[in-house]
Amino acid sequence: MIKAGIVGGTGYTGVELLRLLCQHPEVEITAITSRKEAGMPVADMFPSLRGRVGLAFATPEAAALRECDVVFFATPNGVAMQQTRELLDAGVKLIDLAADFRITDIAEWSKWYGMEHACPDLVAEAVYGLPEINRDRIKGARLVANPGCYPTAVQLGFLPLVEAGVVDTTWMVADCKSGVSGAGRKAEVHTLFAEATDTFKAYAVPGHRHWPEIRQGLSRMAGHEVGLTFVPHLTPLIRGIHATLYCRLTRDVDLQALFEERYSSEYFVDVLPPKSHPETRSVRASNLCRIAVHRPQGGDTVVVLSVIDNLVKGAAGQAVQNMNLLFGLAESLGLTQLPIAP
Amino acid sequence: MIKAGIVGGTGYTGVELLRLLCQHPEVEITAITSRKEAGMPVADMFPSLRGRVGLAFATPEAAALRECDVVFFATPNGVAMQQTRELLDAGVKLIDLAADFRITDIAEWSKWYGMEHACPDLVAEAVYGLPEINRDRIKGARLVANPGCYPTAVQLGFLPLVEAGVVDTTWMVADCKSGVSGAGRKAEVHTLFAEATDTFKAYAVPGHRHWPEIRQGLSRMAGHEVGLTFVPHLTPLIRGIHATLYCRLTRDVDLQALFEERYSSEYFVDVLPPKSHPETRSVRASNLCRIAVHRPQGGDTVVVLSVIDNLVKGAAGQAVQNMNLLFGLAESLGLTQLPIAP
Amino acid sequence: MIKAGIVGGTGYTGVELLRLLCQHPEVEITAITSRKEAGMPVADMFPSLRGRVGLAFATPEAAALRECDVVFFATPNGVAMQQTRELLDAGVKLIDLAADFRITDIAEWSKWYGMEHACPDLVAEAVYGLPEINRDRIKGARLVANPGCYPTAVQLGFLPLVEAGVVDTTWMVADCKSGVSGAGRKAEVHTLFAEATDTFKAYAVPGHRHWPEIRQGLSRMAGHEVGLTFVPHLTPLIRGIHATLYCRLTRDVDLQALFEERYSSEYFVDVLPPKSHPETRSVRASNLCRIAVHRPQGGDTVVVLSVIDNLVKGAAGQAVQNMNLLFGLAESLGLTQLPIAP
Amino acid sequence: MIKAGIVGGTGYTGVELLRLLCQHPEVEITAITSRKEAGMPVADMFPSLRGRVGLAFATPEAAALRECDVVFFATPNGVAMQQTRELLDAGVKLIDLAADFRITDIAEWSKWYGMEHACPDLVAEAVYGLPEINRDRIKGARLVANPGCYPTAVQLGFLPLVEAGVVDTTWMVADCKSGVSGAGRKAEVHTLFAEATDTFKAYAVPGHRHWPEIRQGLSRMAGHEVGLTFVPHLTPLIRGIHATLYCRLTRDVDLQALFEERYSSEYFVDVLPPKSHPETRSVRASNLCRIAVHRPQGGDTVVVLSVIDNLVKGAAGQAVQNMNLLFGLAESLGLTQLPIAP
Repeated sequence: MIKAGIVGGTGYTGVELLRLLCQHPEVEITAITSRKEAGMPVADMFPSLRGRVGLAFATPEAAALRECDVVFFATPNGVAMQQTRELLDAGVKLIDLAADFRITDIAEWSKWYGMEHACPDLVAEAVYGLPEINRDRIKGARLVANPGCYPTAVQLGFLPLVEAGVVDTTWMVADCKSGVSGAGRKAEVHTLFAEATDTFKAYAVPGHRHWPEIRQGLSRMAGHEVGLTFVPHLTPLIRGIHATLYCRLTRDVDLQALFEERYSSEYFVDVLPPKSHPETRSVRASNLCRIAVHRPQGGDTVVVLSVIDNLVKGAAGQAVQNMNLLFGLAESLGLTQLPIAP
Repeated sequence: MIKAGIVGGTGYTGVELLRLLCQHPEVEITAITSRKEAGMPVADMFPSLRGRVGLAFATPEAAALRECDVVFFATPNGVAMQQTRELLDAGVKLIDLAADFRITDIAEWSKWYGMEHACPDLVAEAVYGLPEINRDRIKGARLVANPGCYPTAVQLGFLPLVEAGVVDTTWMVADCKSGVSGAGRKAEVHTLFAEATDTFKAYAVPGHRHWPEIRQGLSRMAGHEVGLTFVPHLTPLIRGIHATLYCRLTRDVDLQALFEERYSSEYFVDVLPPKSHPETRSVRASNLCRIAVHRPQGGDTVVVLSVIDNLVKGAAGQAVQNMNLLFGLAESLGLTQLPIAP
Repeated sequence: MIKAGIVGGTGYTGVELLRLLCQHPEVEITAITSRKEAGMPVADMFPSLRGRVGLAFATPEAAALRECDVVFFATPNGVAMQQTRELLDAGVKLIDLAADFRITDIAEWSKWYGMEHACPDLVAEAVYGLPEINRDRIKGARLVANPGCYPTAVQLGFLPLVEAGVVDTTWMVADCKSGVSGAGRKAEVHTLFAEATDTFKAYAVPGHRHWPEIRQGLSRMAGHEVGLTFVPHLTPLIRGIHATLYCRLTRDVDLQALFEERYSSEYFVDVLPPKSHPETRSVRASNLCRIAVHRPQGGDTVVVLSVIDNLVKGAAGQAVQNMNLLFGLAESLGLTQLPIAP
Repeated sequence: MIKAGIVGGTGYTGVELLRLLCQHPEVEITAITSRKEAGMPVADMFPSLRGRVGLAFATPEAAALRECDVVFFATPNGVAMQQTRELLDAGVKLIDLAADFRITDIAEWSKWYGMEHACPDLVAEAVYGLPEINRDRIKGARLVANPGCYPTAVQLGFLPLVEAGVVDTTWMVADCKSGVSGAGRKAEVHTLFAEATDTFKAYAVPGHRHWPEIRQGLSRMAGHEVGLTFVPHLTPLIRGIHATLYCRLTRDVDLQALFEERYSSEYFVDVLPPKSHPETRSVRASNLCRIAVHRPQGGDTVVVLSVIDNLVKGAAGQAVQNMNLLFGLAESLGLTQLPIAP
């Protein structure tokens, strides 16, 4: 059994990791930390786990993280990088669900995240944990930077087009919609029920932290800098991201075949039949990404629709997928639950 | 492997049965019928099942139901009773998720359901499938009447009190709230999104078909006719029933101990600590019933709060639980998925 | 024009007062206070008011409240009572939307609200602002205690029965469901969208502050102490309260006629035809209370269904109705907007 | 008083027209038709109108539409054109809220709407009822084609840019999100609460009927054919459209000033300050359109955010605005209600 620790288990990513890991046949959760809630049984905070998770939150000091085989950081940005070196030195593998190791350009990272990086050398070592692109590198890694939720949906949607070099990469548009759980479990006015239900809005149009992450990913695929406009929106659903992607074809190609071939051996990516419209609930509570590709009116514009559950494929599920790769397990182990619909 | 058939698989109960059965380690779904959708792959109607359910809907005639080990009827009331005898004669076990076999008093059934019963003798044979009360009888049965959603939540909530004879059974109140999936997947105006969201209402106050079913159950527990007022409400959630139950104590008793003892060996019933308030999402997509019992201000009024997922413990999950009993399997087999929260 | 001031205008009650008062033909809003947001234009916090409310929040000191004709307190409990005497002395009329003046029994008030009362003598003077009961007393008052949201819905529902003396007042049950705006605009985890949507729960079953207020009101109507069980629930809607009320008839009576007669001249109370089920959206954003009365199966149990918009008839609208009475205006002035449905 | 008739009053557009017209100081609703519901009091179908709308639905024959001053068609596409000539001949003014008179190219209209047009000559006469563009022509018209909901939000968003000739009109993207009331009040499975809540999806990506309407409008503004990609999405809110618009600047310009100047005298268009994000609830139940314009990272991409209430500015409210123009009334008469928030 893999001994797993979770640092920062009181948010939505944390409780979702708990749900997935405690049903995983090869994992034993041995530690979960929360400085603020130390001593409280996890199931008191999350009644959905009653009877299944017996652990209590512990302080980081008491949690014996160094004895874990793997530690997941479900913490705010800037926390994981403070403890990474010590844990790696102790032989622990790390998966950071925050942004500390996602962006290779340290200056760029500092600009967007507003702090100095504690261990730039480890950023260089870290592997960006999008298995559909980096599977082999992840298998041999010690430190995985789990992708952001928007970046997962957008990169998987653009990937076949950019890899194949069939679109104009100077002006790509990603219009993305996220459920409110993406904003986390912090007490804030703008995500109160009475503020966020029965309404719809864009946010962070001047600039969002996932923009440099997505642009880095697409630029790597393309082999050169891409031009990307990214607009996130808050939509009144609990879970789910819907990315609507726009770009222009530079040469004629069978888009359906291109997508189906690229993802033919990917367990978690499902390319829908032509003229389909995936909905977010078709992946709810699962690690799947469903994608449809369109060419409206037969013109030169490609529209890609890509949906994930932001807490699963966009966070905790992808982290478990990465863990499976790190430990040589079947990639889908513990991640085969069917989506919940309705 | 148990060969399972589903009659009427296009509603919410049907898709939920599919989700549970196709993940059940001892079941093979061999037939699913829908006269109207015959020929359509199930996953075309329910994209959440893509890649996991390869079956297509078949006409009842083509479905070879007689070769199944068990057949689930997820049909409108009045359908199952037409096919029951033939299937029983063929050695098939039956679980009816509709109301055809729930009420023993045939005249009462006819009054509430507005039709003649096709096989009153089989009503007498059928076992009411609430395992927490009828476990042993279910094990030996051929024909199980799966309880209604409200009746499940209400009966499990009142059960310890009525069995112990500690409350006045002449005036019990069950104020129940259901998610909209309880109304089924029929196209109707009053359950449209724009009609049913951001609003709350009672319905069927003059009389609801679950009233005689609940009253029958409580009267059996009490050993005499009980007096029950039952008011159902429609609430803007997809899944979930919350029953708020009121009655008066006739003698002093440790309510918390009474409930904990009654349910101490029930896998699917979770009695919460004193002063708790279970919420429906704490059982979402699971077969659990969570219950809290209160005695406000120390008076003689008992308030019981009981929550289930109407599609799982209130329908498909309970049906699978009954199937496990019918075939001598562990009662929780295939039903241990954790609730989805948030 | 009536010069109106609002103390504490940053919550939902405050913004609803602003919406109603700035459309009221006889009112000029001259001051709105918020210590925390002093200097911020009101329309920056509430974009729905852009172009219509030009005021900025001011500190209480700067707000010249003593020059107002009427001041509304939309503050947390315990604030209004600190400033009441000074404003009354300056000739200002006061309407407190919090609970400082609702409960006449000072000891009882202190027990439930956890503080000493600053001016018990003014509690004795204050008039409980439910116009359907206290209209004449309100007209001559200086100080109005605006009722709570649950108490408004429950009292209007039980009123005809209790006044007529036709029910057993020793055991009455009020099962109430509220939209989430009732919890206010404070940043708290349990009212976040991802915590409060697609779920349903009871709360405060051991005891809620509206219980003594409702009991006081019903006891006054009855002329003796009543027995009341009150259970509030949180339901995923923005606005709306649905009270489902249960009691037992002590003598035969034409319930429909009783309700229609009692409310025949009440502009804001609408008694629905027999067998109706009012829904909360039928009063959304209006000052109406709609009521239906049932006697299921012709038994001796009465079920009353009563719905209001908690922010209007349950708070700001009722306050404006009281203001109209205080100043001799038509009671419905500025309150005739139609409900918003869908 | 203007005598107004409504043909087809049982849908969401119809009930919204009723809400607005019965509060309009210069209008008397004299007829409302529904062949199917003839005889039923309007307030029985729409309880929110109880006590305020005394009319019953009548058959079109019985409704005396020829005696109205204005008739609103809130009917399915293809109905209004059958009755237009007769009513115009009788001196009645017409406002069609459906699509019969929106598209001037008859062949294009037939292609998208799948029927022959009954009166192409009247299409030529009809005025496209977007007052912010066509105010003067509307004033003198007999027949107004009320714009679609998406076309209203998109055209108002792109208008200042296209009129000023500062963007590349060969590739414009309109990513639009609509509340579910936009799908109407028909009983259909895909808009049931349990199908449409807590999920998000695009639809009609291969082609939507509002695409030719929007393209016609933008092409008129530009003076040449524009290239437009339009993707509508269904989002779980009752009312509201959010259009996110993308295009590329062809020369440097002060975008904020451009928008503010263009709309400086428009009562119903509100240009927000720089860096704003309008949300749909900020216009809920009002006739407003709120717009923000962005230039992310100072690049050459313009992002416009435009929100309306699809039932008001996107349908019934705009129709009343057009009526005000037709009859020489103040354009905002009866349309000044504040948005409902929360």
